Amino acid sequence: MISLVLGGARSGKSRFAEQLATHSQLPVLYIATATALDDEMAARITHHQTQRPLEWQTCECPLQLVETLARESQKPQCILVDCLTLWLNNQLFHYPQQNFAQLFDQLINSLEQTQATIIFVANEVGLGIIPLGEVSRTFVDEAGRLNQRLAQRADQVFFIAAGLPLTLKGPAV
Amino acid sequence: MISLVLGGARSGKSRFAEQLATHSQLPVLYIATATALDDEMAARITHHQTQRPLEWQTCECPLQLVETLARESQKPQCILVDCLTLWLNNQLFHYPQQNFAQLFDQLINSLEQTQATIIFVANEVGLGIIPLGEVSRTFVDEAGRLNQRLAQRADQVFFIAAGLPLTLKGPAV
Amino acid sequence: MISLVLGGARSGKSRFAEQLATHSQLPVLYIATATALDDEMAARITHHQTQRPLEWQTCECPLQLVETLARESQKPQCILVDCLTLWLNNQLFHYPQQNFAQLFDQLINSLEQTQATIIFVANEVGLGIIPLGEVSRTFVDEAGRLNQRLAQRADQVFFIAAGLPLTLKGPAV
Repeated sequence: MISLVLGGARSGKSRFAEQLATHSQLPVLYIATATALDDEMAARITHHQTQRPLEWQTCECPLQLVETLARESQKPQCILVDCLTLWLNNQLFHYPQQNFAQLFDQLINSLEQTQATIIFVANEVGLGIIPLGEVSRTFVDEAGRLNQRLAQRADQVFFIAAGLPLTLKGPAV
Repeated sequence: MISLVLGGARSGKSRFAEQLATHSQLPVLYIATATALDDEMAARITHHQTQRPLEWQTCECPLQLVETLARESQKPQCILVDCLTLWLNNQLFHYPQQNFAQLFDQLINSLEQTQATIIFVANEVGLGIIPLGEVSRTFVDEAGRLNQRLAQRADQVFFIAAGLPLTLKGPAV
Repeated sequence: MISLVLGGARSGKSRFAEQLATHSQLPVLYIATATALDDEMAARITHHQTQRPLEWQTCECPLQLVETLARESQKPQCILVDCLTLWLNNQLFHYPQQNFAQLFDQLINSLEQTQATIIFVANEVGLGIIPLGEVSRTFVDEAGRLNQRLAQRADQVFFIAAGLPLTLKGPAV
């Protein structure tokens, strides 16, 4: 069972995804893709951490998501990836010249024989004016492509606004 | 009965909210949070005004929304607040160091024993690339938090695109 | 039958609209509003072209959409306009002083006695922070107004996220 939780900044998508994880009644592995590059980011990470159950396992994974999912998805657990778009951002920063279509193929393939319940959180970033500059456009393009690829593979897809879900795919909650 | 009407810029959210107000068949108090700081803003305000029924009462309220709601929600009327996000913007501009979580608590508390039908219009601003700069990020963060708080309290929540509603909470229209 | 397919950048709205066109089982006229001003744009156009069926007719129409629709909508065919927002952008660039409300009236009027099935693709651009500058604000305003006008006239309206549709108007797919 693979779920994708889409939403804007501060839309409540992380909290909604955390509720899905809790409802799975499985042990939860939380995969954090954020890294504390500055004080503001560190504060955001701490803010999120204090809202999660203490018994959840946490794994920091700014870049090696494909390898981590290939390994961890073999276990009967719930994996919560928060968030996919930040992982993409990290990939764009560290390996800007790579073939992203191929990277997304690898990500989808890592889910092939999953024994786990996996919940992905991702940002919707394409609904405003796209800023000038090639980097911003590439980011919007690849983030959109990644969301489409994963939505195709997912069993459930939600769009979150103000903490409330619209169901794009699968049974409504 | 509390409704929240979310949408982007020029999404038709104000017109949709005005239709809800008309359908309430109650006397309407229109609470405008906009202030005419420049000619463009003045033109926008006039444009909106000419589209509203003449019998509606109007109250300009760029900052004192909590006090106004506490007082006006004791009357059996329909209150239309357009818009919440501009009020937040005014608060951020005039009192940037305040505790916003506390301000939002006060807003929610002002609705506690409401006798009125209240319709809030709010902007969704987090679905694009977030501009650089702490002020923009704070605005997106607090606007999103405010929308979540109010959505939790509201009986009905709509997301408007191209003038048409998606129902996030409550009975569909 | 007139459909409007709304979505953000790289949301899968073009692909969804192309599927609607294919399902119409009519001969398809593809009206492209993009023009290759630079290499990046040329690459985007080519990328889209290679994904469309070879038997579709293509017509490049950066500006003369009203005239083209008035003529082509008299034929029993499926017309796919991709995208309306880029046409508006071209109009804003070439004729910034024109009366846009009047232009939109002309567009709606060109659909009056249509014999064709018409599918419009349009961008939702108002759900992020609006950039400073009058041009950006005018663009967001007019794009939103155009979407509202067309949504009112359309029989079906969809909001696309991650390639998946939410139905704003008409029967769900």
